[in-house]
Amino acid sequence: MNNQIIFIGEITTPYNTIEECPNNVTAQGIECQITVYNEYLMGLKGLCKGDKILILYWLDGANREVTVARSAHDGTMSGTFAMRTPHRPNPIGAAVLEIESISNGVICIKGLDCLNGTKLVDIKPAIMAER
Amino acid sequence: MNNQIIFIGEITTPYNTIEECPNNVTAQGIECQITVYNEYLMGLKGLCKGDKILILYWLDGANREVTVARSAHDGTMSGTFAMRTPHRPNPIGAAVLEIESISNGVICIKGLDCLNGTKLVDIKPAIMAER
Repeated sequence: MNNQIIFIGEITTPYNTIEECPNNVTAQGIECQITVYNEYLMGLKGLCKGDKILILYWLDGANREVTVARSAHDGTMSGTFAMRTPHRPNPIGAAVLEIESISNGVICIKGLDCLNGTKLVDIKPAIMAER
Repeated sequence: MNNQIIFIGEITTPYNTIEECPNNVTAQGIECQITVYNEYLMGLKGLCKGDKILILYWLDGANREVTVARSAHDGTMSGTFAMRTPHRPNPIGAAVLEIESISNGVICIKGLDCLNGTKLVDIKPAIMAER
């Protein structure tokens, strides 16, 4: 079973250190760009300005051994799966944001929370199953 | 850079063939169980009934070479990143659903769309950045 992640692009943000990164994704935050590598450009066909997308990215540098950590929110000890910390067995970041513009394999979105140069894993239409 | 996915658990659904799987996640669908492996049980600390979680899972058997496919929705050719098809460079399924119950490392949720035995990749609190 091949369970290796293939990077399909790269994310440009203004954050070059962990300290500069916002604690979470924020709608209408600072503008960021997603650049999809040439070999995956065809995969963007059909995506348009205004579409809500789920963006998955690889939080390289995370500690993958962590299962419990102190919550930044209220200081209690919580499980990694009850938090959005990058330190988790599979350090995949996830953000649901709206496409501000898309052209030549570059998608502009606002409010990502990751380091400049973060590798892109997937993009798919966001759906949230409401009861 | 170690970009290998580690499986952290397994999903039980009533679907044993691709044909039986629903086309997408549906709130209040059929009950499914997520069983987290023993070594990751501590990671669930803090998750409760009623929490909305983003569940990531590995769609083994997908064709990872596909970048364009015919949309099941309207029959047009679309890019894989504009669709939720499993056939994509990184076959990670994503669902946002509410925890129906959680006990002894087993989370019950309703409405997953994947095969029985699908491997679990991550669970994190769902947030959708609204404008």
